Amino acid sequence: MTVMERLRGKTVTIVGLGLMGGSLALALRPSGVRLVGVEVDGETRQQARAAGVVDAVSSSVAKGVAGADLVVLATPVRTILALLAELPPGPYTVLDFGSTKEEICRALAALPKPITTLGGHPMCGKEQAGLAAAEATLFEGATFVLCRGARTTPAAEALALAVVEAIGARPLFLEPATHDALVALVSHLPYLLAATLMELAATEASVDGHVWPVSASGFRDMTRLAGSDPQMMGDIVLTNRRAILACLRAYQGKLAALLELLETGDEGELTTWLVARQEEHARYRRQK
Amino acid sequence: MTVMERLRGKTVTIVGLGLMGGSLALALRPSGVRLVGVEVDGETRQQARAAGVVDAVSSSVAKGVAGADLVVLATPVRTILALLAELPPGPYTVLDFGSTKEEICRALAALPKPITTLGGHPMCGKEQAGLAAAEATLFEGATFVLCRGARTTPAAEALALAVVEAIGARPLFLEPATHDALVALVSHLPYLLAATLMELAATEASVDGHVWPVSASGFRDMTRLAGSDPQMMGDIVLTNRRAILACLRAYQGKLAALLELLETGDEGELTTWLVARQEEHARYRRQK
Repeated sequence: MTVMERLRGKTVTIVGLGLMGGSLALALRPSGVRLVGVEVDGETRQQARAAGVVDAVSSSVAKGVAGADLVVLATPVRTILALLAELPPGPYTVLDFGSTKEEICRALAALPKPITTLGGHPMCGKEQAGLAAAEATLFEGATFVLCRGARTTPAAEALALAVVEAIGARPLFLEPATHDALVALVSHLPYLLAATLMELAATEASVDGHVWPVSASGFRDMTRLAGSDPQMMGDIVLTNRRAILACLRAYQGKLAALLELLETGDEGELTTWLVARQEEHARYRRQK
Repeated sequence: MTVMERLRGKTVTIVGLGLMGGSLALALRPSGVRLVGVEVDGETRQQARAAGVVDAVSSSVAKGVAGADLVVLATPVRTILALLAELPPGPYTVLDFGSTKEEICRALAALPKPITTLGGHPMCGKEQAGLAAAEATLFEGATFVLCRGARTTPAAEALALAVVEAIGARPLFLEPATHDALVALVSHLPYLLAATLMELAATEASVDGHVWPVSASGFRDMTRLAGSDPQMMGDIVLTNRRAILACLRAYQGKLAALLELLETGDEGELTTWLVARQEEHARYRRQK
C-alpha cells in the first residue's frame, strides 16, 4: 500500500497550529487527508481559516478530536502533558511532536484503551515561532524520531510512518531516554550556549555602542538560537534538566581545558587543537 | 571628488588572493583601478589569471609592490607581520586586512618613510577559505574597522576610505586595542565556543552513530565557525590571547551562573532568564 493509500480518507487533527503544527498541515495538504486544527489563539485560528491551512479549526480539543483517526499534539512539552490528561475517549492514534520524550512517553503509555500512541519528534525547526513561520518543506530530509511504548500498535505505527513519509522526513526509532540525551547535546546545549553568548555580548553592548557594528555573520549565527520561544525552551529545560546539566558540565570541562591550553600551551599544541576541530567539522558535514 | 575619481589611474596591489584578497579584487573591478596580485600558491595564481581576477599576478612581493599606490595585505595576521618586515621602499600606502590590530599597528607605525599606512579589518567573512570562495559582494554593508597610526597621512586615509566606499563597506575608526577587545567578544570567542561544541559532539558521535542523524540546523549553525582555517585562527589566538582569555573567563562565569540557575532556580527565575535572552536577541537584530 502506498503512503497516499494509507492516508486516504483519514482525518488528522493537529493540536497547536504554530510553526510545527502549521508546517505539518501545509506538508500534509497534498496527501488529501482531512485536516482539523485545534488552536487556543483566536488570531491564529483566523489566519489558519483565511489561508485554508486546515479544513476546519476549533478552540476545543474535544470537538477537534471527535472523528479523528490521528491526533497530532504539536505544542510545547508541558502543554502536551496537560493535553494528554484531558483527551476524550478513543479510538484514535496520538502522535506527539514534543521536544523531549521521557515524560511524554510515560504519559502516552498510561492513556486508556482504545487510544493508541507513538511518541515523535521531528528534528527541524527555526527560531521563529508561530503559524506565519510555517513552511510545507520544513520536514523535508529531516530525521523524525519515533518512540514506541506500551500503547503502540502496528496500526498506529503504520499510520505515523505514513505521515512521516508523506512530509518527506526520515523515521528513526529511539528509546525516549536515548532521544533526550542526544537532543540535550545537539539541540538544548547549543541553545543555552547561544543564549549565554547573547547575554555576555548584550551586557557589553549596553555600555559600548561599537559591539553591534563590529559583530558580523559569525556572531549572528552563534546567537540565532537565543531568539527561540522562551515557553518552548522552558518546557524543554524543565523536562530534560538532568541530561542538559550533564552536557553543560561536559562542555565546561572542554572549555576549561581549552582555556588552559590558551594560557600554557605552546603553538604546536594550539595548532593541533585547531586542526582537529576543523577536521571534525569536515567529517560531520560529510555525514550530514 | 567622487570615489571613482579618487581611485582612477591608481594601482592596487593585493598580497594574498584568498577569500578576503580575492573578494577585494572582485569588488574593486568596477572601479577601474589596476589590480596586481601577489600570491605564494601557484595554483591560486593560475586560478586568478584564468578568471581575470587581477590584471597581473606574481609570486614576488617586491615585483608586485613596484609601482603600487596602495598595497593591501590580506593574509593571516602573522604573515602580515612577516610581510611588513620585508616590504620594499616606498612611496605607497599600506592597508592591512589583519583580524587583530595591536601588533600589526605597532609594526605599521615602525615602517620607514615615505611609506604611509592605515590598519584595517573588514568585519565579514565565511568559514570557507580560498579564492574559490571569494565574492564581489562580501564587503557590502559590512563594518570596516580602520586604525590610524604614526604613519597615517590624510592622503593615505583618503585612499583607504575610497577603497572602503568602493566595496560598499562602512568605515569605523577605532583604537587597535579597542578593536581587539571587541573582536575577541564578537568573533574569537564565538569561534572557540563553536569549536568546543564541535569537539564535545564529535567525541560523542565517535561512539554513538545517532548523534549526527539527530542533529539539525541549530547544531549546524552553532558549529559552522569550527570549520574556519586553523592558520588564520591560530594567528588570531596568538596575537589576541589576553583579550580572548578575558572573554573566555567572562563566558565561563555566565555559564556557571546558568548551571546554578538550572540546578537550584525555580521556574520563575528560569523563565526570566529565557525571556531576557530572547529580548536581547530581538534588540540586537533590530540594530543589525
